[in-house]
Amino acid sequence: MTSLADIAGVGTDPRRGGYSRHGFDRVELELRTWFTEEAGRRGLSVECDRNGNLWAWWGVPGDGAVVTGSHLDSVPGGGAFDGPLGVVSALEAVDVLRAKGFVPGKPFAVVVFAEEEGGRFGVACLGSRLLTGAIAPDAALRLSDSDGVTLAEAVRAAGLDPSGLGPDAEALRRIGVFVELHVEQGRGLVDLGVPVGVASSILAHGRWRFSISGEGNHAGATLMVDRRDPMVTAAQVVLAARRAATSVEGARATVGRLIPNPGGTNVIPSSVDLWLDARADDDARTRAVVAEISAAASEVAAEEGCSVAVSEESYGDTVVFDAGLRDRVSGVLGGVPALPSGAGHDAGILAGHVPTAMLFVRNPTGVSHAPEEFAEADDCAAGVVALASVLEELAR
Amino acid sequence: MTSLADIAGVGTDPRRGGYSRHGFDRVELELRTWFTEEAGRRGLSVECDRNGNLWAWWGVPGDGAVVTGSHLDSVPGGGAFDGPLGVVSALEAVDVLRAKGFVPGKPFAVVVFAEEEGGRFGVACLGSRLLTGAIAPDAALRLSDSDGVTLAEAVRAAGLDPSGLGPDAEALRRIGVFVELHVEQGRGLVDLGVPVGVASSILAHGRWRFSISGEGNHAGATLMVDRRDPMVTAAQVVLAARRAATSVEGARATVGRLIPNPGGTNVIPSSVDLWLDARADDDARTRAVVAEISAAASEVAAEEGCSVAVSEESYGDTVVFDAGLRDRVSGVLGGVPALPSGAGHDAGILAGHVPTAMLFVRNPTGVSHAPEEFAEADDCAAGVVALASVLEELAR
Repeated sequence: MTSLADIAGVGTDPRRGGYSRHGFDRVELELRTWFTEEAGRRGLSVECDRNGNLWAWWGVPGDGAVVTGSHLDSVPGGGAFDGPLGVVSALEAVDVLRAKGFVPGKPFAVVVFAEEEGGRFGVACLGSRLLTGAIAPDAALRLSDSDGVTLAEAVRAAGLDPSGLGPDAEALRRIGVFVELHVEQGRGLVDLGVPVGVASSILAHGRWRFSISGEGNHAGATLMVDRRDPMVTAAQVVLAARRAATSVEGARATVGRLIPNPGGTNVIPSSVDLWLDARADDDARTRAVVAEISAAASEVAAEEGCSVAVSEESYGDTVVFDAGLRDRVSGVLGGVPALPSGAGHDAGILAGHVPTAMLFVRNPTGVSHAPEEFAEADDCAAGVVALASVLEELAR
Repeated sequence: MTSLADIAGVGTDPRRGGYSRHGFDRVELELRTWFTEEAGRRGLSVECDRNGNLWAWWGVPGDGAVVTGSHLDSVPGGGAFDGPLGVVSALEAVDVLRAKGFVPGKPFAVVVFAEEEGGRFGVACLGSRLLTGAIAPDAALRLSDSDGVTLAEAVRAAGLDPSGLGPDAEALRRIGVFVELHVEQGRGLVDLGVPVGVASSILAHGRWRFSISGEGNHAGATLMVDRRDPMVTAAQVVLAARRAATSVEGARATVGRLIPNPGGTNVIPSSVDLWLDARADDDARTRAVVAEISAAASEVAAEEGCSVAVSEESYGDTVVFDAGLRDRVSGVLGGVPALPSGAGHDAGILAGHVPTAMLFVRNPTGVSHAPEEFAEADDCAAGVVALASVLEELAR
């Protein structure tokens, strides 16, 4: 048996609470080793592809496989379930199928995608984006973490060849269908009173960096009228984001990361970088929200004597999951509800290339990306049973 | 000769620009070694007191000494002059006096105070506060840096006994008069067209930490109406600080440090800590500004479903420098102008205990606590000559 308890002590973050597990860091590498060992105990053969994604094959690898899995990295201070639940449930589903004597009629793999949260290098779903060509390898290699370590350096340290990163037609051809199980990030299943559902769609979403420059100076010696304080502009951008998202139905805008430079208490910052996460039902609404915030940022920056530069760090349009597959999955499970997802997933990246489905497991808190993220053991078990049934149907 | 060029390569901060030199860190310890060697080359005997302040004695140590000096630490990403200019000028003033055959008639010391900026442990003028009893040693020992290292651990690593920290009557008795030379942090001397001035007063000033708690959650899955986002509250506090300081004549309020937890782009923070630096002409005005900002913080936090806790991390009332000493110093220099200081200094802490004066050296940019902080070589030389004249008069 494999369970989340096996890795409960890996990557805990005493300062933030919860877990901090980031792509190719010491902790994520430890989780990869754990996964490789767990797969090995089942006789699955593990391969790492050119982009750092791990593939554990049940039987002989081949094209058109039934693939399930998720990711092992987290946001900074994240919960225990987002990612690892899908990986653990995939391994347990293999156990369930084996116990009943099932032998897949097609190639079958459990996958762990690299740096899904973008918690280290800033681009979410990095492993699946690289594999599918959704991000150019040269752009990816230049990404750097908060210590200035580039992705190229990080993958090299992890034993990968940076020059191998990029679109991987062979790996993509091997995926016939992808099913990702995930803890729900909301209270949809709580309200419906059911433990498991399927995904209908993913909001359009992206990340934009606002770099605001002003004039660094002494906090005590500089008169208020003489200031060009980028923190004041940044505060106005945060409030503009709230206003813009509130005015467009279904839209969300968040500033969760904000870094003043130099960051001293008695120093007016010379610059502030903040990151906007914006999402909405479709491309037009998402773009409209970001355009409104960007326009407001330019206006308030000019009033303060500051300047602002906005750059898009990642973007993904709305994903509507394959309706035929969704209905087939739901049918296998006796007709479970379909829910939209406000969160992005590797399944959303793959959906543009292969039939893809997602299963959600009820989350009583509705909270995600925080230590309060949760799923009851009974619901996790129901998720494993549901995933096994779906995989049996697809790999028959 | 000793000059700022000697230490121009020590503690440069490639990420922030300028210098990051913090109390008892590797870089500040390197600067202490440099100071000890420079003092030794002059035959001065260097002692470290129980609170980590360095004293270089010209002749036999004793009570009632003429003391000059400043500090070697900086704010994060600070300039080259704030602190080190006063130390270098003190050593050079000793050279000037020696060259003319002067022998002090009183004990004479050059001092380097520890952690003046509070850039590592959050409390400015930590060395002089400990020495004079302005901060309780048990409170100081519990201070910690951003890596969680306590002051107790840091001083122990630097070879000091943490149990020795605290009021040092012996060290204080040795100070008969203190003169600190400092780069001006403003354009007062530029406007007056003179290279050197004296200080008249220091604004009342302090630091307050605002800890805002909300509900951490997923940036994509959480509807705007369901949010309790402490970043939104923090933004409103930043703007409240601007409003409050602008409405009180002479007041200044700054938020230069702000840390969202956990700090992920796709995460609504569970909490945000921000630090308010507030200053005004007197205690009543400073307290009024902070009270207004605190009241606004409580109100906006409640609207967002957040909570806020405000704690005072340091505070110093207005300092009016000894008028007799100020006039005597100005007189020695032929009647230079007296300027108020918006910045705090160790001289301000000592002023409550011994006669204290400050000399300012013209700063053409007016900028401080930033890499643009500057003084022309001719003005620095004029500062050394002025300081030597003042010390000669006082130590005669």
